[in-house]
Amino acid sequence: MIDPTRADGRTPEQLRPVMIERGWSAQAEGSALISFGATRVLCTASFTPGVPRWLMGKGTGWVTAEYSMLPRSTNERMQRESIKGKVGGRTHEISRLIGRSLRAVIDTKALGENTLVLDCDVLQADGGTRTASITGAYVALADAIEWARDEGHIGRKAQPLKDSVAAVSVGIVGGTPMTDLAYVEDSRAETDMNVVVTGSGDFVEVQGTAEGAPFCRDELDALLDLALGSAAELREIQRAALGGAR
Amino acid sequence: MIDPTRADGRTPEQLRPVMIERGWSAQAEGSALISFGATRVLCTASFTPGVPRWLMGKGTGWVTAEYSMLPRSTNERMQRESIKGKVGGRTHEISRLIGRSLRAVIDTKALGENTLVLDCDVLQADGGTRTASITGAYVALADAIEWARDEGHIGRKAQPLKDSVAAVSVGIVGGTPMTDLAYVEDSRAETDMNVVVTGSGDFVEVQGTAEGAPFCRDELDALLDLALGSAAELREIQRAALGGAR
Amino acid sequence: MIDPTRADGRTPEQLRPVMIERGWSAQAEGSALISFGATRVLCTASFTPGVPRWLMGKGTGWVTAEYSMLPRSTNERMQRESIKGKVGGRTHEISRLIGRSLRAVIDTKALGENTLVLDCDVLQADGGTRTASITGAYVALADAIEWARDEGHIGRKAQPLKDSVAAVSVGIVGGTPMTDLAYVEDSRAETDMNVVVTGSGDFVEVQGTAEGAPFCRDELDALLDLALGSAAELREIQRAALGGAR
Amino acid sequence: MIDPTRADGRTPEQLRPVMIERGWSAQAEGSALISFGATRVLCTASFTPGVPRWLMGKGTGWVTAEYSMLPRSTNERMQRESIKGKVGGRTHEISRLIGRSLRAVIDTKALGENTLVLDCDVLQADGGTRTASITGAYVALADAIEWARDEGHIGRKAQPLKDSVAAVSVGIVGGTPMTDLAYVEDSRAETDMNVVVTGSGDFVEVQGTAEGAPFCRDELDALLDLALGSAAELREIQRAALGGAR
Amino acid sequence: MIDPTRADGRTPEQLRPVMIERGWSAQAEGSALISFGATRVLCTASFTPGVPRWLMGKGTGWVTAEYSMLPRSTNERMQRESIKGKVGGRTHEISRLIGRSLRAVIDTKALGENTLVLDCDVLQADGGTRTASITGAYVALADAIEWARDEGHIGRKAQPLKDSVAAVSVGIVGGTPMTDLAYVEDSRAETDMNVVVTGSGDFVEVQGTAEGAPFCRDELDALLDLALGSAAELREIQRAALGGAR
Amino acid sequence: MIDPTRADGRTPEQLRPVMIERGWSAQAEGSALISFGATRVLCTASFTPGVPRWLMGKGTGWVTAEYSMLPRSTNERMQRESIKGKVGGRTHEISRLIGRSLRAVIDTKALGENTLVLDCDVLQADGGTRTASITGAYVALADAIEWARDEGHIGRKAQPLKDSVAAVSVGIVGGTPMTDLAYVEDSRAETDMNVVVTGSGDFVEVQGTAEGAPFCRDELDALLDLALGSAAELREIQRAALGGAR
Repeated sequence: MIDPTRADGRTPEQLRPVMIERGWSAQAEGSALISFGATRVLCTASFTPGVPRWLMGKGTGWVTAEYSMLPRSTNERMQRESIKGKVGGRTHEISRLIGRSLRAVIDTKALGENTLVLDCDVLQADGGTRTASITGAYVALADAIEWARDEGHIGRKAQPLKDSVAAVSVGIVGGTPMTDLAYVEDSRAETDMNVVVTGSGDFVEVQGTAEGAPFCRDELDALLDLALGSAAELREIQRAALGGAR
Repeated sequence: MIDPTRADGRTPEQLRPVMIERGWSAQAEGSALISFGATRVLCTASFTPGVPRWLMGKGTGWVTAEYSMLPRSTNERMQRESIKGKVGGRTHEISRLIGRSLRAVIDTKALGENTLVLDCDVLQADGGTRTASITGAYVALADAIEWARDEGHIGRKAQPLKDSVAAVSVGIVGGTPMTDLAYVEDSRAETDMNVVVTGSGDFVEVQGTAEGAPFCRDELDALLDLALGSAAELREIQRAALGGAR
Repeated sequence: MIDPTRADGRTPEQLRPVMIERGWSAQAEGSALISFGATRVLCTASFTPGVPRWLMGKGTGWVTAEYSMLPRSTNERMQRESIKGKVGGRTHEISRLIGRSLRAVIDTKALGENTLVLDCDVLQADGGTRTASITGAYVALADAIEWARDEGHIGRKAQPLKDSVAAVSVGIVGGTPMTDLAYVEDSRAETDMNVVVTGSGDFVEVQGTAEGAPFCRDELDALLDLALGSAAELREIQRAALGGAR
Repeated sequence: MIDPTRADGRTPEQLRPVMIERGWSAQAEGSALISFGATRVLCTASFTPGVPRWLMGKGTGWVTAEYSMLPRSTNERMQRESIKGKVGGRTHEISRLIGRSLRAVIDTKALGENTLVLDCDVLQADGGTRTASITGAYVALADAIEWARDEGHIGRKAQPLKDSVAAVSVGIVGGTPMTDLAYVEDSRAETDMNVVVTGSGDFVEVQGTAEGAPFCRDELDALLDLALGSAAELREIQRAALGGAR
Repeated sequence: MIDPTRADGRTPEQLRPVMIERGWSAQAEGSALISFGATRVLCTASFTPGVPRWLMGKGTGWVTAEYSMLPRSTNERMQRESIKGKVGGRTHEISRLIGRSLRAVIDTKALGENTLVLDCDVLQADGGTRTASITGAYVALADAIEWARDEGHIGRKAQPLKDSVAAVSVGIVGGTPMTDLAYVEDSRAETDMNVVVTGSGDFVEVQGTAEGAPFCRDELDALLDLALGSAAELREIQRAALGGAR
Repeated sequence: MIDPTRADGRTPEQLRPVMIERGWSAQAEGSALISFGATRVLCTASFTPGVPRWLMGKGTGWVTAEYSMLPRSTNERMQRESIKGKVGGRTHEISRLIGRSLRAVIDTKALGENTLVLDCDVLQADGGTRTASITGAYVALADAIEWARDEGHIGRKAQPLKDSVAAVSVGIVGGTPMTDLAYVEDSRAETDMNVVVTGSGDFVEVQGTAEGAPFCRDELDALLDLALGSAAELREIQRAALGGAR
């Protein structure tokens, strides 16, 4: 194991500075501009009465998400997916992950026949864009639900939000388990794991991938420990951004 | 002619507050977050050595632009063009307009065989997104050219930038010619005109459209007068944002 | 300013020979094969009762247009947009321009809930294809409206056509303002402007673009003067093609 | 068997009036506007030196074809395939048929490493568009080959054209075998057969389809007899259009 | 004419071994894994109550087919059409052929407003994939119709199946007419013909193509004779697979 | 916790019958038809010398995978992705998972500049299609590498295969952790986890998803224990299929 001091001076279990600018957008029902260090994601929540055709009449709502990166959010400009004419596999995969993560803390019966679309647009990318997206989207979602309650779209006593949710990437870099990998760390990690955790400390998603060598049970355990700790910190930052209310 | 006082209290010839946050992106060679009132556009300039195949060996550079709106930049969420699988006519039209406007102030010989791509992503839309895009993209472009000079990609004495360029929308609303239309004004304008003007006060583009009744020569002249005045103000704001240098 | 005599011997203010073969198609409700010199465009108007979903029940009709070039209408064969799988920006832009130009002379209330689609297919291209398309499409449109009246789809006294409309391209070539640019002129014009004018002499669209150097106010004025003169001539040719009636 | 007199008064073995306007296009290396009654197809032949990558260096040329219908060539307007974003099965099928039919009379070695693209655009459709396309495309092809010889792209003595080719649709309508079906006949035919025949009277393609009831060997034989007769007549019309030379 | 003995020792009029594994799929309403020598096609029939919108209320059913090849069914791996984003011309053409062939033996009135989709997926390809598909799809279709009768979707006495249908490819290879061409024969055939024949011995489709030299009437006749003989053999193999019942 | 007996009588830690038909395809360099109960996947490995452009000259090989389901592999027919014109998110996600899993056991330096494409086509689906795909693809991959060695494409002593790899889905159903979920179990699982394990017992991928309620650390541990046990069994079945050699 090499010296675990990180390029930006963090300890292995230390998050980058996390900032949440709640209500960044004047148009959306809920929004947050979240940053994990240099990674910046604009998350908006769009509320619309009604559900897609395949859910009509079942008395349940729908929550979905779309993730995208601006072409110059990265160090080298990427081609737009709209120009290519198709959405790539990575984009699909992350959009689906964000949607599942948020649905895990939603009581769709309590939401009623209403739809929430979360858009997570990466303005600047430096690793951890999917975990920043989930963490920020929760804030936008919570505000959109309050908006819907204020507007009378959902009942005064309905509580569609069962819990909060946050996410963090952890990985083994140079033999050391570390939390919240920046791009330079992520690109040389042997193992990379994205973990989505509720405010109560249970798992919603665990996605670990051996980028280099396969990993053993002990390494897996160390990564899960790190992730649970970081998720608890993110939970407090979300709570503060939401004014302590949720 | 009705009372020309506008919803936000502006006079007919008054611009909305214009703010330019230069260097917003840490990744791009040049960037600016520009706002015209509630309209906010992130403009990045990406510099790459080399040109597309059809220009190779001709000793000239290439400047192009892509415009896009985030799905929830507008009051109602729009579907992403990447999901639709095709870029719409309006997006194409505006991307081409931005590209032509910037090429009008570029000396492509002086640029050498290098490419500049301007991305204008609308984060929030309240009318005038194409004119804000052109005005902000100029700032990003100017910075990317300085970067390229500093990095030695273009000669120390080469001056690819022949002039500055800015744009404004003008229109006839309720019989009154007005500058810099906000969305609520634009949507009920009888005539809508986008005018692109160089720092020297010449025209690059004049695009006038009768949305309701056709317009006569006198109305056209009044709109052009307004546009030239506003463009001169935008020119000063650009100069200030660039530190007075260009 | 160089000698203003043009390659084909025209004076600067002279149109190419314009021919309109009304009723070229046996299938369409209205049609015209129009030529501006070697430029030939087949314009058809398709009338169908009913309107798109988003207009239903509003008591107004819809007029739209689609422009396309045959692959070998040009000097070098172009790839078909159907094969590429997407419609290019230029095609979109021109289709939208034709649609807006025709809607400017239509009273959609008087049209009732009916749809008119104008197809402008360029069979041979030698500059001015968009202006020939608008000028010819008006003739097809006028005939389709007469057909609809004869068939009882619109009332005997309804007058959906408020005015006529025609278009011409003007530009500055070698320092001289000229009308109705042929391809060889258009490709070396410093400034190119497409102007759409009603039969009453008002503007529907003014689209001026600096291809080379920006243009000043005096040049703009000279081009508008030329355009109004040519549009008046085209108006007479349309009237003659329609038997003097409209 | 019912009375075999046809709606337009033709006898069963009689072609509609066939007209070939050779050299209709000023842009293409060869062209023909062909009509079979009300069916009108613009055929252009585009010659370019060189071959697709997969044929390079083999010393042989390439001939291919693309077929398309204008949206209002038919009685009801069809959506453009460029707008749909994909080419339909029928279009593909006919394009491939035209290409194969022309290649059957081409000596690709004698053509050298050159490419000929035949575009067949249906301006007006009344049955038999694919057979008119093949018959007209041959004329355009022959002229493009003469052009290439005159320009020195192929040798003075090379003879890439081995034979002529023409096509006709035959079918059984109301129990009677008939040639050159118009749309009204085609749409109620029990059996429909497209036959492509060389100037020497051999078959290039035979495509018979039971639209209603399956057909027996005798019916097949009767249809082939009719087709060979009509093809011989078309061969003479082609020869006349080409000035008797080929 | 050269020695007509074939690479695999067959006589010119001899089919390859044909095997039909009925009911291969546990999911589909009808299915068959058919092999013509090394060519193997999985055919499934999917029955659903109801018809496409354009057929609703007309009292008739709908039968359609889709053909596809697995990417490594062939000797060299082909790109998937789903990855390319479009279905190729050959695939379209064969899917349409299979659909027409099956509809020729279906009484759509007797089928009622129900839909049958035949999927023919080529698992391994060695020539004759379209003819194996038709022959196998008939077996799957017959079983799906029995299933629908057993389930009460069609009446006990309704007989939607008017006849059986089978297909074979015949061709002239090295001057000799041969039946059921394997890939190595097909690729050097001068003429290739696919013939679809009902159980009663009538033609549904005859598609002959000159791959090399055009073919004369006598050759056409010889090929048709061969095809009718092979189709009768396939008819017996289908009957045996279906337990002699249909 | 309810009675843990499963619908098909298995115990919670029992795999369904697993069969591997090695060498099913006569065309591919390696192939296996694998079944996990009623789930059947055809896996082929295609070897080609050379690598994609972005890897050229780096001395390393490339392994990638594509997953697809036949339209009627499922209980209700699905639309083909080739017809839709785009590959769905789930397909992308699984293709990427299979590719990463196989690359984890490949020494790309030892492979040299060669490419292996694994195609996993689901012929019949009853849960666990992605884990069956990985397990079967390993067998096809191993055979393709032997083939390449025999053909001299890779050195006699090179050993590109560092280990074996297999995968299994585990989940919590009705409160009980279970291995190898069939469709009926998967669709009502509270938590679903796909685990990819090397022959040495290390993890390549761990993908756990809370479908209903979030899961706690103890549940995660129980699932990982089950997965490691099942993976060891699959490893023995792979070894047997490969003749004990690898």
